[in-house]
Amino acid sequence: MINFDDYIINIPDFPKKGVIFRDITPLLANPKAYSYAIDMWSEKLAGFGATKIVAAESRGFFFAPAMAIKLGLPFVPVRKKGKLPRKTISVEFDLEYGTDMLFMHEGDVSSQDKVIVMDDILATGGTADGMCRLVELSGAKVACCTFFMELVDLKGREKLSGRDVVSIIKK
Amino acid sequence: MINFDDYIINIPDFPKKGVIFRDITPLLANPKAYSYAIDMWSEKLAGFGATKIVAAESRGFFFAPAMAIKLGLPFVPVRKKGKLPRKTISVEFDLEYGTDMLFMHEGDVSSQDKVIVMDDILATGGTADGMCRLVELSGAKVACCTFFMELVDLKGREKLSGRDVVSIIKK
Repeated sequence: MINFDDYIINIPDFPKKGVIFRDITPLLANPKAYSYAIDMWSEKLAGFGATKIVAAESRGFFFAPAMAIKLGLPFVPVRKKGKLPRKTISVEFDLEYGTDMLFMHEGDVSSQDKVIVMDDILATGGTADGMCRLVELSGAKVACCTFFMELVDLKGREKLSGRDVVSIIKK
Repeated sequence: MINFDDYIINIPDFPKKGVIFRDITPLLANPKAYSYAIDMWSEKLAGFGATKIVAAESRGFFFAPAMAIKLGLPFVPVRKKGKLPRKTISVEFDLEYGTDMLFMHEGDVSSQDKVIVMDDILATGGTADGMCRLVELSGAKVACCTFFMELVDLKGREKLSGRDVVSIIKK
């Protein structure tokens, strides 16, 4: 039996005082635990009838490409400014202070799609909400938003209201 | 039979005039071709006796976590400044103009390790060489450097001389 808490290091005061950073890199460094995470997570996503998986750089890429292979679904990357070479669509999304932009190649998601929006951690939900809006701007539906870890106190789930949210562990 | 050229779009003049950008996101969007890439690539890496896989954000994460699962090896992320919360080691690496820094958590790689250094594309080799030096700074050996695509004219292989280089396709 794998206890995911054994593969997460809590780092106080990173990136700034008062914040506890959840370092999941020990999970990535343990192939047995990491495979198990992808396997059991995939079972929770299999019932949504999704046609694509979307995730944003960089930590979203820790899980989404492997999940796309596991579920046999196309993986569509969302990136920051200046990274995607073809014509893009974009949205502004909320950071703790200020805003930033997210970009997706135009046409990578279409009105026929039901999309899994994926990230490693759900904090305040700004990035996930931005990805959802990119998907919806493309005319597609969000099948669900899914996270390895949900930081419940930060209320990201409220930011994503109206969309299904699937998280593997809650803190 | 899968022809990888069907899943690569050549974008002229991106990110600047005279450069042809190789957009591999169509490969990620085709689960059959993407799985096949991981499978056949893993066979070429299996004989190196590697103990870990290292890759740098962001595009290195398109392949390395899935490969780590496939080969049953730990995955160690290399990141830019301010992203890794624990104590890090760092190196400067060459960009086309100027330099930047790469960081790895101290202790993620140790003197017992033989490490696969992985990225999506080998261009001038600056990032891959930086990752190799992080591995070597940790006292570990580089098992091989490996890339989905090698841009032969840019002579990245020379930058990596003394290390084994495995590329899946050459352009």
